[in-house]
Amino acid sequence: MNKAIEYHAGKYDVIVIGAGHAGCEAALACSRMGKNTLILTMSLDAVALLACNPAIGGTGKGHLVKEVDALGGEMGMNIDNILIQSRMLNTSKGPAVHSLRAQADKVDYQLKMKQVLENEKNLDLKQGEVVEIFVEDGKVTGILTKTGARYDADAVIVSTGTYLKGRIFIGELNYEGGPNGLFPANELSECLKKLGFRMRRFKTGTPARIHRNSIDTSKMEAQPGDDEIIPFSFLTDKIDVEQVSCYLTYTNIETHKLIMENLGRSPMYSGQMESVGPRYCPSIEDKVVRFSDKNRHQVFIEPEGRNTAEMYVQGMSTTLPEDVLLKMMKTVDGLEDVEIMRGAYAIEYDCIDPTQLKRSLESMDIENLFFAGQINGTSGYEEAAAQGIIAGINTVLKLRGEEPLILDRSEAYIGVLIDDLVTKGTNEPYRMMTSRSEYRLTLRQDNADLRLTEKGYRVGLATEERYKRLLKKKDEVEKELNRLKERKITPTKENNELLESLGTSALKTPTSLYDLIRRPELSYDQLSKLDQDRPDLNKESRMQVETQIKYEGYIEKQLRQIEQFRKLESKKLSSDMNYEDIKGLRLEARQKLKEIKPESVGQASRISGVSPADINVLLIYLEQQRRMGNRSENNE
Amino acid sequence: MNKAIEYHAGKYDVIVIGAGHAGCEAALACSRMGKNTLILTMSLDAVALLACNPAIGGTGKGHLVKEVDALGGEMGMNIDNILIQSRMLNTSKGPAVHSLRAQADKVDYQLKMKQVLENEKNLDLKQGEVVEIFVEDGKVTGILTKTGARYDADAVIVSTGTYLKGRIFIGELNYEGGPNGLFPANELSECLKKLGFRMRRFKTGTPARIHRNSIDTSKMEAQPGDDEIIPFSFLTDKIDVEQVSCYLTYTNIETHKLIMENLGRSPMYSGQMESVGPRYCPSIEDKVVRFSDKNRHQVFIEPEGRNTAEMYVQGMSTTLPEDVLLKMMKTVDGLEDVEIMRGAYAIEYDCIDPTQLKRSLESMDIENLFFAGQINGTSGYEEAAAQGIIAGINTVLKLRGEEPLILDRSEAYIGVLIDDLVTKGTNEPYRMMTSRSEYRLTLRQDNADLRLTEKGYRVGLATEERYKRLLKKKDEVEKELNRLKERKITPTKENNELLESLGTSALKTPTSLYDLIRRPELSYDQLSKLDQDRPDLNKESRMQVETQIKYEGYIEKQLRQIEQFRKLESKKLSSDMNYEDIKGLRLEARQKLKEIKPESVGQASRISGVSPADINVLLIYLEQQRRMGNRSENNE
Repeated sequence: MNKAIEYHAGKYDVIVIGAGHAGCEAALACSRMGKNTLILTMSLDAVALLACNPAIGGTGKGHLVKEVDALGGEMGMNIDNILIQSRMLNTSKGPAVHSLRAQADKVDYQLKMKQVLENEKNLDLKQGEVVEIFVEDGKVTGILTKTGARYDADAVIVSTGTYLKGRIFIGELNYEGGPNGLFPANELSECLKKLGFRMRRFKTGTPARIHRNSIDTSKMEAQPGDDEIIPFSFLTDKIDVEQVSCYLTYTNIETHKLIMENLGRSPMYSGQMESVGPRYCPSIEDKVVRFSDKNRHQVFIEPEGRNTAEMYVQGMSTTLPEDVLLKMMKTVDGLEDVEIMRGAYAIEYDCIDPTQLKRSLESMDIENLFFAGQINGTSGYEEAAAQGIIAGINTVLKLRGEEPLILDRSEAYIGVLIDDLVTKGTNEPYRMMTSRSEYRLTLRQDNADLRLTEKGYRVGLATEERYKRLLKKKDEVEKELNRLKERKITPTKENNELLESLGTSALKTPTSLYDLIRRPELSYDQLSKLDQDRPDLNKESRMQVETQIKYEGYIEKQLRQIEQFRKLESKKLSSDMNYEDIKGLRLEARQKLKEIKPESVGQASRISGVSPADINVLLIYLEQQRRMGNRSENNE
Repeated sequence: MNKAIEYHAGKYDVIVIGAGHAGCEAALACSRMGKNTLILTMSLDAVALLACNPAIGGTGKGHLVKEVDALGGEMGMNIDNILIQSRMLNTSKGPAVHSLRAQADKVDYQLKMKQVLENEKNLDLKQGEVVEIFVEDGKVTGILTKTGARYDADAVIVSTGTYLKGRIFIGELNYEGGPNGLFPANELSECLKKLGFRMRRFKTGTPARIHRNSIDTSKMEAQPGDDEIIPFSFLTDKIDVEQVSCYLTYTNIETHKLIMENLGRSPMYSGQMESVGPRYCPSIEDKVVRFSDKNRHQVFIEPEGRNTAEMYVQGMSTTLPEDVLLKMMKTVDGLEDVEIMRGAYAIEYDCIDPTQLKRSLESMDIENLFFAGQINGTSGYEEAAAQGIIAGINTVLKLRGEEPLILDRSEAYIGVLIDDLVTKGTNEPYRMMTSRSEYRLTLRQDNADLRLTEKGYRVGLATEERYKRLLKKKDEVEKELNRLKERKITPTKENNELLESLGTSALKTPTSLYDLIRRPELSYDQLSKLDQDRPDLNKESRMQVETQIKYEGYIEKQLRQIEQFRKLESKKLSSDMNYEDIKGLRLEARQKLKEIKPESVGQASRISGVSPADINVLLIYLEQQRRMGNRSENNE
């Protein structure tokens, strides 16, 4: 015999499988909302592992981190605690797409998150590989670990990242393996298949890590951090740490020539690897092939921590073999003498088709079984954390017998992410981008707390302190907006001289500060000299005020669009609706509606294969049903 | 195809395979002695991993650390930098067996050592699994990694720890695996077999890690650190850190009953596991079986770091399955509600029979191939480091065409360790103990620098600073000994009263301080009141002075024994000696001498199966040879 003998190891309200970015948020949400929770990881040394780039945030992703934080999550606090550089991206563009991004000390990030899990009440963190999920009568009942521990549970959250049937590819070489030299999880993947889940095979890649002393930064552009660090968490007041620099360099024609010559040695191009990779985080060979007119691509060199010599090479992930990797890196300015410390690799893994999930992230077919993170076909730490916190919250709400927390597309990027996943599915690792949102101007980073903290507080996750901070900020901003409306600037000579020095035209009649801030050429901060009674607001509140004034018109327009959007969202569709009965639906629409089981007409309208005509059929049907319902009620 | 294509990746003077405690010292020695060195590890996250207990030193082992440090090694500095508790063990016994032991912050230990490797000149640290060692004409020429990198090298040091064909055992479950959830190295083991090495199958085990908050320390004995921390390194002046406590508890009859009832579920007892484990670090089931008259065994609970909740359970390593482990732990006082975070496991691995090595740790059969650490059949971080530094030094000396550095049994515990290994071999994981040394009184921790630093300096490893410190200490101690001999205390009333108050008899004639210190009831420190001119020596020098005075007679006797011992050691035996030609040797002796190829008559005398009569035959033969040599010289 060569297998562990099963034994009964205990009972938990919730068991979370996997302690990556999704698992950590899920487990913390469940335990903080009062459920006795177990989180299992294949390795206690891989908790919250930043398996790829040593950074949190970025375009679109920064929004997700802020939203997770606003709901009461941990990711924002954790990165604030250990960041070694911070930058606000896209500041030359409008406030809607400002995105925060911070470099992490990779090991510190893990250690701090592990410490948080270890010290959380109601939460047990244990090492163990889950090999089976038990289901009885369509409802989850517990799990089994490789070492024979059978735990009963009321609910299970699956957040296994890239571990399921992981396979590593490096040029011609490939072998079974999880991320970062860890073991893959093979048995759990088989179990999910047996439970009836349709699986996908996705892949992702990571570049080499190189030695700091082997690169010539004088040939690169230094990328320092911002002078003033804006924290990710609404609970962090100020971050004052010494920042380290990143460096920007570029590939060139020689690099691209080498890649093209060796393309046949990449398993992606030789046909050995048939899985689908992330479109928006392509390998260098993909970029060279797809954008053959480009003479260069950006390469960012980022430190992996404060005290390590290892540096991450963003932009050069590859499945080309090591010898080609080394040669091609050496063609890059500043990398002529590069020493690779860890090679690049791609990992292929099993994930589920997320259209098998409800918007709560619960399985449609197995009750109390939730999924979050890369297992749902996404890519990125932030996307994982966002799903993790929602899966955690909804697991607890389900166990309480309450309605799930569904964030719609107009409320949060998290809503966009989950709606996209469960409604449209994804044929490649899904990455968040600001362009995926229809309501960008209202879904800003700076108002994530205004949008979400109350929801997090109502379900019992966001703390009292967080809620009080929200109320204070809300009040502060509102008072300031009112004050700015009332405070008139008179057209005195002195005032007009000052205004003209700021590059704006002089006043003829008394004008409110509010109206002055609306002028494109003026900012809130610049007008402080005309405004003696100004309260001392922090940077975030000042930005809030300014954005609300400057973009008032646009925001109002967007709010009207949202109202329209909500009309269709509010027309609920029951999950046991019989689409066969609805005459006039096209065959494809009927099939898709049966499969996706949309929770509203709005969601139905976003299913690919469901046309506006089908939606009209649905609306007419619902109206008929409503009238019949009214009639039968009247008859009673 | 599913294998990497070979490519030429470069050339190094020395390649070290494995970055555990042996590999780190070996690579640092080579690079510090000027050789261009590459150290390869299967995982950059496992450099200097404390895979078992979170501590450095202990009885016998503390001596090894001090000796490694005295030669110019890193282990002592590294533990000094990150220790969280320190204790001098055996202080109730004589100074020969005083042994330093420190608790490490496990993660810090790794990070600091990795940083040292990263920043060392002449040293490259890379992740990579070695799958083949190339040998041409009986000489090593390079290595091949799994990803196809072929590196040429003048010499290779193998320090692979427990990775070779690693197999994990947990009760009935067993599977391929390296330590701590990492991958095993299978191909290299096959390569060593093909190269002709006789392999052994050893095993070792590690206990569970438990959650700090799940134990009741009030039911245990606290084990705080010493008030004054004595550093491991002769370069560290002072260590002043907040110390954490360990805790002592015990197994009991109930624990033992549970173990006996479940013995059949241990793979060691069911016959699934036939490898040999360390006698002096037995599993709890071994202890209970072997010492069936004992009602309890010690269990030490040791923190794994300053900021983690994980605690190590020393004394309870086991191969019993998880359910039994949990039940048996819960019988122990203070562990009634224990939460296991990582389970216990045993690991079985391939190692070589070390009698295939020279005393320099070079292979007898393959030139410039050296072995160090657990691959040689030892157990323990300190034993590994000791072999690592010697292998490193001797690799460089070999490449320089110089004689190897051989420490004999009278010079260092390192000498005892290596002589035991290559002369006697070992049938179980070898662990250092003070009782293994014949010359304990001269091989103390406190004089490791006096014994070894000059040797380390002469070969170019110990730094100038270290050597100067040695000279200063030597001078200081010598001057003080002379001063104490010359400084007479006169039998005044005042002096005699003071002496009587110290519990010793009054003087009748003037007596030197030196002679007073010889009195068993008096210490050097106590006599300070009679000694106004006393210089301000540090604790180590004071101990040195006192020990030399108090144990003068014993030390002198031991030095005479050492002189005797050296006579046989100095009678060199050539490695190409033809033992078939020597008449009068018994068959077993002849076979063993051919196999072990002793380098001296002294070493030959320690081979099991070589009798005193055989040694006499050898001595007569050598004398004949000498005379014949003299005659032929005279004839010329």
